[in-house]
Amino acid sequence: MSLSFAILGDGAWGTAVALLLAGRTDHRVALWSARAENGRILKDRRENVRLLPGVPIPQSVLLSTDIAEVVSGADLIIAAIPTVYLRATLKAVAGAVSPSLPVVSLAKGLEMGTFCRPTVILEEVLESRRLAVLSGPSHAEEVSRGLPATVVAASADPELALWIQRCFSTDRFRVYTSSDVVGVELAGALKNIMGIAAGIADGLALGDNAKSALLTRSLVEMARFGVALGAAHATFFGLAGLGDLITTCISPHGRNRHVGYRLGRGEKLAEILSGMSMVAEGIYTTRSVHAKAAQMGLDMPITTEVYRVLYEDKDPLTAVSDLMLRDPKHETSV
Amino acid sequence: MSLSFAILGDGAWGTAVALLLAGRTDHRVALWSARAENGRILKDRRENVRLLPGVPIPQSVLLSTDIAEVVSGADLIIAAIPTVYLRATLKAVAGAVSPSLPVVSLAKGLEMGTFCRPTVILEEVLESRRLAVLSGPSHAEEVSRGLPATVVAASADPELALWIQRCFSTDRFRVYTSSDVVGVELAGALKNIMGIAAGIADGLALGDNAKSALLTRSLVEMARFGVALGAAHATFFGLAGLGDLITTCISPHGRNRHVGYRLGRGEKLAEILSGMSMVAEGIYTTRSVHAKAAQMGLDMPITTEVYRVLYEDKDPLTAVSDLMLRDPKHETSV
Repeated sequence: MSLSFAILGDGAWGTAVALLLAGRTDHRVALWSARAENGRILKDRRENVRLLPGVPIPQSVLLSTDIAEVVSGADLIIAAIPTVYLRATLKAVAGAVSPSLPVVSLAKGLEMGTFCRPTVILEEVLESRRLAVLSGPSHAEEVSRGLPATVVAASADPELALWIQRCFSTDRFRVYTSSDVVGVELAGALKNIMGIAAGIADGLALGDNAKSALLTRSLVEMARFGVALGAAHATFFGLAGLGDLITTCISPHGRNRHVGYRLGRGEKLAEILSGMSMVAEGIYTTRSVHAKAAQMGLDMPITTEVYRVLYEDKDPLTAVSDLMLRDPKHETSV
Repeated sequence: MSLSFAILGDGAWGTAVALLLAGRTDHRVALWSARAENGRILKDRRENVRLLPGVPIPQSVLLSTDIAEVVSGADLIIAAIPTVYLRATLKAVAGAVSPSLPVVSLAKGLEMGTFCRPTVILEEVLESRRLAVLSGPSHAEEVSRGLPATVVAASADPELALWIQRCFSTDRFRVYTSSDVVGVELAGALKNIMGIAAGIADGLALGDNAKSALLTRSLVEMARFGVALGAAHATFFGLAGLGDLITTCISPHGRNRHVGYRLGRGEKLAEILSGMSMVAEGIYTTRSVHAKAAQMGLDMPITTEVYRVLYEDKDPLTAVSDLMLRDPKHETSV
């Protein structure tokens, strides 16, 4: 039996997932563009010229700016809208999307002000009850070119997670299941703070030892925060945590790492931001998480130092020294 | 009160640790060369010309080939001898080393044939009872140049671990303590298998997504093996596990990663080995661990594929495909 997928959001990852799902002949895939201009270019060129240049979109993928057309007959809604635009975009289309449809979120981040995770926003706006999240190390550029990736599909509903696993799996795209939606979503947001920290270490040319230790301690800190908010500890050491953290911290293309790198080289945040066209989510996540951690009394040394560098003009090298000089600890202390 | 350290082994890491410890004026440091010729050059040049070129060894460090002179008055023995030479080297000097002295091992690996960990060899040959291991992401080249590193000191004796932490800690060298000697040592050996796997992925140009997923699943596999042999699960997600794994898999200088890279590019093992002057321990560790895992009935998919590529001439790309096509799983399954 054929399956229909409605992808909301024509960014790099939404487009890459459309290509991935369209690879199977029993799949019908529709991709919705929120902006009319983007939708027109996409349809004309059948290529995401700006974000995934050189990768053709097959004719079998329906490209449309008409939400009713896209969700018509859909078996699964795939929300591929950045967290920062998620609530407003969903509000505009909520009337067309049946609350009975299962929804999988591809968004990473936390809503500014409310601290909401993407699936919480989906539940609030679409009134969806069958929710999942797909996350892990998955640069769209690589997936769209057929390079292998391994991710995790998390849902409180085990049947939904297994169904998503079956829908998305190919010989180059491996999907594990999980029940920890909170953990998978928090990990996806927190790793961007650590991407900034890793960039600072690279900008200061601290070397591989320091970088590896930073990633290791980052993960302890991410897990500490997540567990305090109800996540499972193990999730942080899986694909959505460790896996995505590594990609974020080693890839030369990551925006958060890029911001950190330039801070490490001595530039000021305002200077860096004035020249960037895309958002580095970690800048805002750092502020939200730093405030939340303080409120909850959690020790988050790396987040604290990133916050001080970003918002209190602290010298990056001093921040690193302060991390190294804290009281010596027993490793397993969480 | 001043403290005396006797370092056995003048390799890159033994030398770097000598420099690290000699940085404090209340430390007396002696470095023992097993080979007369190496000892002579080291003393003449006051520089480890081959392994740490450009880093001078201060006059305060005693350089000697006389084991009695080196261990005289020592408060701590530091065994910096590669696992493959450890038993034979220790046998030659055991008479000069008091069994009552505490010993910290810097070796990574497992003894071929016996599957002994370095501290087991130290206990058997020196009859030492107060044993510890120092491990983590710590390229000697970086530590010797004063770049920051963070490691773990593990001992069944918590006082010894704390004492080593105090002795080694500086503003650039951060030491955590642990009680899990078995886990720290197994992690240090197992990560070399995964270094080969990461090299294969790089040689095949599989991208950052695949590499990050590989590291994540490597760690699950390392932990599964370690726990079956009595290690603590958490150790594998700490500095000696994850931290060292990352350095091994991202550094362009790692020998194990280098072997994997060339395999991934299509070269044969015999060809690669014929041109290498230094040992890539992972080649032997893969064989030992593969056999042990089979004997214990443990599922080690990555180790198995590395074994097949190394010893059964399996095509690396087929090995990767076979990893991607295994039955889909729930992520937390260990």
